[in-house]
Amino acid sequence: MDQPLALPLDIPARGRLEALHGQLRAAILDGRLAGGQGLPSTRALASSLGISRNTVVAAYDRLLSEGYVSARHGSGYAVAQGLAKKKVAAPGDEGDRRLAARWRHLARPVRSGGKVPMRYDFCVGLPDASRFPFDAWRRLSARALRSLSRTPAVYDAPAGRQALREAIAGHVSFARAVTCGADDIVVTSGAQQAFDLLARCLVTPGRTVIAVEDPGYPPLRAAFEAAGASVVPVPVDAEGLIVEQIPPAARVIYVTPSHQFPLGMVMSPARRMALLDFARRHGAVIIEDDYDGEFRYGGRPLDALQTLDREGLVFYVGTFSKSLFPALRLGYVVAPPWAMAALAQVRQISDWHCDVLAQDTLALFIAEGHLARHVRKMRRIYAERREALIDGLARHAGDLLTLQASDAGLHVATLLRAGLPADGLVQRAAGQDMRIEALAGYSIGAAPPNGLVFGLGMLPVARMEEATQALGRLLKAGR
Amino acid sequence: MDQPLALPLDIPARGRLEALHGQLRAAILDGRLAGGQGLPSTRALASSLGISRNTVVAAYDRLLSEGYVSARHGSGYAVAQGLAKKKVAAPGDEGDRRLAARWRHLARPVRSGGKVPMRYDFCVGLPDASRFPFDAWRRLSARALRSLSRTPAVYDAPAGRQALREAIAGHVSFARAVTCGADDIVVTSGAQQAFDLLARCLVTPGRTVIAVEDPGYPPLRAAFEAAGASVVPVPVDAEGLIVEQIPPAARVIYVTPSHQFPLGMVMSPARRMALLDFARRHGAVIIEDDYDGEFRYGGRPLDALQTLDREGLVFYVGTFSKSLFPALRLGYVVAPPWAMAALAQVRQISDWHCDVLAQDTLALFIAEGHLARHVRKMRRIYAERREALIDGLARHAGDLLTLQASDAGLHVATLLRAGLPADGLVQRAAGQDMRIEALAGYSIGAAPPNGLVFGLGMLPVARMEEATQALGRLLKAGR
Repeated sequence: MDQPLALPLDIPARGRLEALHGQLRAAILDGRLAGGQGLPSTRALASSLGISRNTVVAAYDRLLSEGYVSARHGSGYAVAQGLAKKKVAAPGDEGDRRLAARWRHLARPVRSGGKVPMRYDFCVGLPDASRFPFDAWRRLSARALRSLSRTPAVYDAPAGRQALREAIAGHVSFARAVTCGADDIVVTSGAQQAFDLLARCLVTPGRTVIAVEDPGYPPLRAAFEAAGASVVPVPVDAEGLIVEQIPPAARVIYVTPSHQFPLGMVMSPARRMALLDFARRHGAVIIEDDYDGEFRYGGRPLDALQTLDREGLVFYVGTFSKSLFPALRLGYVVAPPWAMAALAQVRQISDWHCDVLAQDTLALFIAEGHLARHVRKMRRIYAERREALIDGLARHAGDLLTLQASDAGLHVATLLRAGLPADGLVQRAAGQDMRIEALAGYSIGAAPPNGLVFGLGMLPVARMEEATQALGRLLKAGR
Repeated sequence: MDQPLALPLDIPARGRLEALHGQLRAAILDGRLAGGQGLPSTRALASSLGISRNTVVAAYDRLLSEGYVSARHGSGYAVAQGLAKKKVAAPGDEGDRRLAARWRHLARPVRSGGKVPMRYDFCVGLPDASRFPFDAWRRLSARALRSLSRTPAVYDAPAGRQALREAIAGHVSFARAVTCGADDIVVTSGAQQAFDLLARCLVTPGRTVIAVEDPGYPPLRAAFEAAGASVVPVPVDAEGLIVEQIPPAARVIYVTPSHQFPLGMVMSPARRMALLDFARRHGAVIIEDDYDGEFRYGGRPLDALQTLDREGLVFYVGTFSKSLFPALRLGYVVAPPWAMAALAQVRQISDWHCDVLAQDTLALFIAEGHLARHVRKMRRIYAERREALIDGLARHAGDLLTLQASDAGLHVATLLRAGLPADGLVQRAAGQDMRIEALAGYSIGAAPPNGLVFGLGMLPVARMEEATQALGRLLKAGR
């Protein structure tokens, strides 16, 4: 039974086999040729297309060997069953069923992206990359690549390149008095990977309790929730995390002692001692997130918790997302010796190691003094912006908000006068192409502070007056 | 009671305050000044050091504000308690106690490093990077960086840069007939991160069963074990994974259909259909690892499982570790639409996204045709090496080993004649500065195949005769 093909085939003068095979295959896959349908005999098809029978035989053979057609009992070929395109399941019950429950129940999706920059952009968490010495980076990257091209392609150590670990150890020992050597450092893809690796090492799902600052840094919470930890918020006051309110069951405590995120206070010496004491007594460990500790505008910094720790209780997490720029995805954790092997193993399972070229470039960048120089330069620039911001806020909206005391970092937090809800302001600001953020976005507890956070990374000092004026108008209109 | 300090202090003419403060602080931290010990009065210390009393007052004030000393009842200062250095806990019970149990019980640590290259290096899994067009990469990297320097520093999309996702979609559609667009792609830090993200998305700890090929790829197993999956080995034969032996409980199935790792066979069309059918019937998903599918030396490749899949059951994982080099840490997964949101979210929690500079460079590299050109060039080179290896093995050890049929990839597997145990050979080879690998290293089951795997990445064709000769001598000595 030789039924003709109800399928338009377009066979060119050259490449006939490829064309015939490809068009039949496409028709099988998209359902124009249905499963079970018989194909014309090679002779009939060749004749109808005006091509050689050998070409048709070759095309059928190929489809057969690929499983698109099957040989019929007797003779001839039929389209194989079950190949025609069906609608791919839309995200919904069918899809969700396949995803582990925990991904559906994460407390909140992590924010990302949006239009950058807005006209008045006080986006939190971004440095100003426009002053970055891209030329130096390019030159060092070329040098690192040349050196890399002379060595074989191998997988490297999960903890990172030796030269970079040494450079980071030198940098952090000098800049933050963190006592460490290269062997204590795991290079990570930004601070976020450090949090994720720590969560995966330290959390026993369903059992481990982590205490975090409230308000605090949501992506850290997301990493620990994903690992199956119970996240318990602990309030902060003018001295930082209120240590007495840490639940005794907490086995991990996350703090930002140099510059509380997002409120900005420095953790007091007494609290630091109390926190270390808590960890000692309860067998807990501390994650010290020093995300923008390089940017201090006055006074001598207090020593890191890591510096004070004598017993291997503290994981010190640093990042180059603020001192260089986030697109690089480079950070590190200074870990106690007992945890190094586990961290390296989890790192290897996660993604083996960071891009070697970026690591080698950064190692040269630090060793040649560019990092220290760039941080010094940016510290001056952010300090000017910060002063201009604080000054502008005082003049244009001084009676409507209260500055949170802080002398470090890339953002400034303020509390709003009662009756001026931050959420509405944020939305009205967006309507005027201004980005401000509500403190409540970083809160967990029932009574979030009513305030705003201003990032210093996107607005040059020359535009601060204009921006704070616009903000003042907005606030006054909201009264 | 004014006791003198039993501590040598060395105070220079300039920077007296810094020196005094620093030396006292160091002595407190390293225990030379014990907790509770009283400090001399400011007057006494100033006099004994021959410096101004104000300097001593300032140093004590600073130590007090930092929490290193405390004010005594009455007057004077004492060293704070609990600061002196103790021995940091060695990795052992105390340290282990803090690590979640699963990290101690991982089936096997993932291999890494070792001396590279050895004299005769048949290391598996490494490409030859010496032919890589480093100049082109450097030029494109500089261009990408210039472009990056004109945009603000932002966090990017977890799924990857749009331009790279488009370039990968074009590449994989063309090279492997994988049907996808940019929206179906998540850029990852190598295939390993793809496996890890999939494990974290698809596994419910303690419940999910994954079926893997035996022998197979250990780091994939490590990622799924880490996520809490039960890993069940399924044997392979000349047609690839034996689908009938997949346990019905399996909800994830991992396969290397283009080039079984490490044995090298191609999965037959019938098995491909049967596997897709299994997944359909059991609500399972398939991870298709096409780690070196670009390197085929004969015949037309069979279509990817992803191409045959009509129902969103297949995750197709690709990597640039073999086609470019592993140090880049770039790979990707082509995912069904229902899983994209979860993958992006897990990616963001893991480490946000890949280094943007590397992504942008690779996007240009693909768009300008360098990837396709490089793969074509390397395919010729590896084909020559493969032929020389097979020829040399046949001549120098033909009666002692049997080649596994395969016409693709960067390695060749062989079975050894009975009575020639691979383990002993591997060790004796290492003693002669030769790296060969035992198939057993990739096995899970009780009766691993007795054979060797030879990687093609490290030995140029000109040295293959010498290397196979040496290998032949080694095998004959082992009889």
